Amino acid sequence: MWAHVGQPFAETAYDVVVVGAGRMGAFCARELRRLAPALRLLLVEEGGLPNEEGATLLAPGVWSAHDAPPGREAEAAWTRAQLAGPLGDVQFRAAPLVRLTAQPTPGSRPTAEALAAHPEALALLDPAALPWAQVDPAAATFRPGAVALNAAQEAVRLGADLLLNTRACPGGGGEVTLERLSVTNTHEVVVHERRVVRAAQVVIAAGAAGAALAEHGLGVHTAHGRAYRQSPRLEEPSTEASPTLRAGGLTLRPQAGGWTLAPAIWHRDPQGYVPGGGALTGVPTGLRRETLEDLVALMDAVPALAGGGLGLGRSLSDVPGAWLALPHGRPDAPPLWQRLDETHTLLLGGPLADVLGLGVAHGLAAALAGVPERPWAPAG
Amino acid sequence: MWAHVGQPFAETAYDVVVVGAGRMGAFCARELRRLAPALRLLLVEEGGLPNEEGATLLAPGVWSAHDAPPGREAEAAWTRAQLAGPLGDVQFRAAPLVRLTAQPTPGSRPTAEALAAHPEALALLDPAALPWAQVDPAAATFRPGAVALNAAQEAVRLGADLLLNTRACPGGGGEVTLERLSVTNTHEVVVHERRVVRAAQVVIAAGAAGAALAEHGLGVHTAHGRAYRQSPRLEEPSTEASPTLRAGGLTLRPQAGGWTLAPAIWHRDPQGYVPGGGALTGVPTGLRRETLEDLVALMDAVPALAGGGLGLGRSLSDVPGAWLALPHGRPDAPPLWQRLDETHTLLLGGPLADVLGLGVAHGLAAALAGVPERPWAPAG
Repeated sequence: MWAHVGQPFAETAYDVVVVGAGRMGAFCARELRRLAPALRLLLVEEGGLPNEEGATLLAPGVWSAHDAPPGREAEAAWTRAQLAGPLGDVQFRAAPLVRLTAQPTPGSRPTAEALAAHPEALALLDPAALPWAQVDPAAATFRPGAVALNAAQEAVRLGADLLLNTRACPGGGGEVTLERLSVTNTHEVVVHERRVVRAAQVVIAAGAAGAALAEHGLGVHTAHGRAYRQSPRLEEPSTEASPTLRAGGLTLRPQAGGWTLAPAIWHRDPQGYVPGGGALTGVPTGLRRETLEDLVALMDAVPALAGGGLGLGRSLSDVPGAWLALPHGRPDAPPLWQRLDETHTLLLGGPLADVLGLGVAHGLAAALAGVPERPWAPAG
Repeated sequence: MWAHVGQPFAETAYDVVVVGAGRMGAFCARELRRLAPALRLLLVEEGGLPNEEGATLLAPGVWSAHDAPPGREAEAAWTRAQLAGPLGDVQFRAAPLVRLTAQPTPGSRPTAEALAAHPEALALLDPAALPWAQVDPAAATFRPGAVALNAAQEAVRLGADLLLNTRACPGGGGEVTLERLSVTNTHEVVVHERRVVRAAQVVIAAGAAGAALAEHGLGVHTAHGRAYRQSPRLEEPSTEASPTLRAGGLTLRPQAGGWTLAPAIWHRDPQGYVPGGGALTGVPTGLRRETLEDLVALMDAVPALAGGGLGLGRSLSDVPGAWLALPHGRPDAPPLWQRLDETHTLLLGGPLADVLGLGVAHGLAAALAGVPERPWAPAG
């Protein structure tokens, strides 16, 4: 493991290089070490573990059967089982997810009844506006950042090499240019040294930046998108036992005594979009305008959003946010891997990485290792 | 009529001020003069007729029954009838619209048969990829810019006042601040003089800028959106008799011996987005990336898009484009007017203005004139 440029790195060839140690790349690396210990493996991360600017750190960390794409329930359940134990402490907590609607849905019951044991959750809502509740008792919350950290650490324990603070640029013929970064005393990030390694297989798991990296480095056209999601806080009381709530696409996750909001992503952001704060009838906010509008539209049903507890901020830096990959440019597309050429594979998480990401990362590792079985599929 | 700041303007009060002389505002003004000649009316336009930066000038100018929202067919037909005659020469031309699909649709027939009389249209396509054609024989093409010009001129003939090169800022209590603009010899637009007029009713018909104008001037929150649409050219031969084609959301309108493309709008652009050119595997283009991706996805079905005739440009200024209002933030929402308070009404055209815009603008004029009948509705 090389964390900084003071540690000389002299390797020149690997069987597999994984670019990006978010949860997708880190878990893929861990699974590769388990399934194919003979393969020489390098995991490269531009930041630390987890990258402070990556999507993993700010992902909601909500697993719910509601989110499992049809036909992939077993793979989603396997992802949940990984989170619940084998990855070490990822702050996994079984917590029901309660989806609130104006109209009854299959299996729903009255909101006041479903949330009777959770007055702190009921207090956020107007049960008259959201009278129906559909409960997923199998849901859970966890820390995606801890998933990336633990998976990367286990990959290293199992024999992977790890380069931190290193930008990796895939190029033709399996060459990967590694730019080891350091920070000057004026806080400028500079390239300290450049090295080239050769890899038989390169996995590009760079999140929202992955598709552009493939296009620039390999000249491969892809049609994936990205979106900038902010996660504002709602400072109203929650407890260790509070359920996760969802209404109108907005997810409210109990966290640290309050609630962390995961706004819906409706569509991609255009190339060239620079996130900026919004304004509500002239008052500047750190929340982007589209998210503000969604929250305003929900204020009647979730009156707590209209109170002083919502962290609107005054400028963009006040509200945590990150770029998220959108596979196929769609907010509802599951995580995927895609062969770009004989050497390169793109691995994307995106909005459904919480529920299915580890299964997809495992699937790529198994494919690279030549293992036909999947642990979630019945034998035969 | 006041076209420039050299013409002194001293009026102080109107019954109705219409902000914006695109086709929506100009036609609303014309209808107001016809329905309520007693009302003193001022039409204000920031640019000329039509505004070179407005959505009207670059609108596709394609009327099709395919685009009429369910239940509003009569209003759409009335819009068509206005374009066909009463507005003077708007280059109206009856031209079938042929919607091409991979799967049969109700009433569709084989593409090769439907386009047998139009070899120049058939030559753009691969009929094996788009074997089915649904023809709208009632479709027509026209020049939206001429609609705005003719409607504004007729409003003036009928007694409206018209201020060009004037920015109008609605404020509280029916005050409208008029900023008369001139251009310095270094091509800078400056405010030459400011005047305030009072209006009993203000119609904000400023296109994509309308919702922001209402919010800034009146403190009213709206949830409308906007999108930046570019209209690249495809230089392949067309004739005066060529049909309009549509495939995968892309409209190809025969114009000036070639084809003008109207790409689909899938969703709003975020606030703060600054349009920029895209790049295709490293080659810079003037077309935005999202439009490029749509065209690339269509290249198998419409091989002409992959030839040298497509005007990709090298930078944004090479490809005509304009901001379009999206009512309710949705690309499929019809034009609308919306009361903001007792004095102000927002009038929005958007993607369906070609098919329904004049009906909606008439409806607002009739409402302001106190006329309950609509010309497209059966009496009684």
